[in-house]
Amino acid sequence: MTLTELKQFMDIHKKEIDERMPSYIERMEGPGTLKEAMVYSVQAGGKRVRPLLMLAAVSAFRPVEEQDYQAACSVEMVHTYSLIHDDLPAMDDDDYRRGMLTNHKVYGEAFAVLSGDGLLSKAFEMISTLTHVGDDRKIRMVMELARSSGLEGMTGGQAADLEGENQTLALHELEYIHDHKTGALLTYAITAGAVLGGAPEEDIKNLKLFARELGLVFQIRDDILDIEGDESEMGKAPGSDEGSNKSTYPSLLSMEGAKEKLVFHAEKAKSFLPGSSSYTSLLNDFVDYVAERIH
Amino acid sequence: MTLTELKQFMDIHKKEIDERMPSYIERMEGPGTLKEAMVYSVQAGGKRVRPLLMLAAVSAFRPVEEQDYQAACSVEMVHTYSLIHDDLPAMDDDDYRRGMLTNHKVYGEAFAVLSGDGLLSKAFEMISTLTHVGDDRKIRMVMELARSSGLEGMTGGQAADLEGENQTLALHELEYIHDHKTGALLTYAITAGAVLGGAPEEDIKNLKLFARELGLVFQIRDDILDIEGDESEMGKAPGSDEGSNKSTYPSLLSMEGAKEKLVFHAEKAKSFLPGSSSYTSLLNDFVDYVAERIH
Repeated sequence: MTLTELKQFMDIHKKEIDERMPSYIERMEGPGTLKEAMVYSVQAGGKRVRPLLMLAAVSAFRPVEEQDYQAACSVEMVHTYSLIHDDLPAMDDDDYRRGMLTNHKVYGEAFAVLSGDGLLSKAFEMISTLTHVGDDRKIRMVMELARSSGLEGMTGGQAADLEGENQTLALHELEYIHDHKTGALLTYAITAGAVLGGAPEEDIKNLKLFARELGLVFQIRDDILDIEGDESEMGKAPGSDEGSNKSTYPSLLSMEGAKEKLVFHAEKAKSFLPGSSSYTSLLNDFVDYVAERIH
Repeated sequence: MTLTELKQFMDIHKKEIDERMPSYIERMEGPGTLKEAMVYSVQAGGKRVRPLLMLAAVSAFRPVEEQDYQAACSVEMVHTYSLIHDDLPAMDDDDYRRGMLTNHKVYGEAFAVLSGDGLLSKAFEMISTLTHVGDDRKIRMVMELARSSGLEGMTGGQAADLEGENQTLALHELEYIHDHKTGALLTYAITAGAVLGGAPEEDIKNLKLFARELGLVFQIRDDILDIEGDESEMGKAPGSDEGSNKSTYPSLLSMEGAKEKLVFHAEKAKSFLPGSSSYTSLLNDFVDYVAERIH
């Protein structure tokens, strides 16, 4: 498989994900403004990396089915909720996200908090109502998502990130933050894809290790892009993390050191993919895609 | 059974719940301050009505087991999360809760948002790791909790409550708010207790209807207490809702009308309890307890 084929896979499925994201919320009953606020953020675009990774992991074991989109969109609900809360004035205080006003700039802080809350609950509901996998696999997904999103995962990572602001972090502290703030949910996406796909436990375990490395690649690339990137491609100003005094891989390791580390983790990620199996090519190419992405 | 026996049931189980609540969080790995903030709120006391209702519903079908506390504490995690978020400056802006400083007054807004987020994820994890019921029942609980806590339940109710501030509501609007903001999670607690206890579908259905009425009794009593209550018993000043221009049952129906409505829903609640069955007495007495409570 080539990067072109991966691109095709991503284009096809991203379109399906983009179409479905608002529809899961629109179908619900609820007060108009809150529903509107939730829809606003789930259709605000983005690369949909997490659901695409989940589908890539599923397709390693069997063809993607209609219901897989519901599971895939569920992880994007969690990602969206985390962005809404992270953007709040009390947290990162961002007015723009992907070139659009952030949720609280449009709907106010109260509704932004509630939008995030509602999306997190929705994610668990979407897993619980899947009909194409057994209850044992759904419970496994609920457990993995709860752990990845809570104190021991994403929420804990965001707290550590806030505490680390305006101070120079040691590399292991920076890694803790990324492992939790970004890595945990990426790992969930891939793990859940393997669970959904019916993977044996050994493969689930390997894909978890794969995912952890991919998460680091993702974050190192993000830090590099923040310095070298093009504002029009990224939707935020390059160097904006630098301005806020955040420790980054280039600031701790130099740009050259960060790039070396990126290659190291990309190679390590690939080492967890069983080499002989045909399914590895898509996830293998995903590593290159993440390592080389320009926005 | 008498109210004294219900009190004994509540005292025994409340002690167990109070002891366990912080321990579920303390055992987790995570950044110190966020963990501390979460523990602060889960041990801030309260009546523990939701977990007690869940255990009362369980005990209608079989004796309470050790693992039931984990399920019961899980709904209290959700309740606690909702209080933390509702107290935020952007929402109800409360400095005190149960006589203690609110979470954001001690840990700041960012950590208060994250504490709530972490508790919601934790609740789902606690259901997913129960070992004394089958996966089918756990998935049912996840689905019911997700619906009760999200846009179609509690979060939607809070949004409607915010939108209804400073205007006189029609009775059906006030009822919508309470049905969702408070009622949904109370209903979940009782429904989940029946599911945990192994109740047949017919009983689960009846207990859901029972719970909805009990939720209304709870809220009407709350509104009455807000006017007639004693500050030292309630931990907040009587009349505080009046001051914020919120519509309440007494303001819409007069105090006498509100009390009549309370009796009506209390009787209706009891009508959904199968009269012959021995299990009804505890839930029956719970209605009287809620209707007559003084704080």
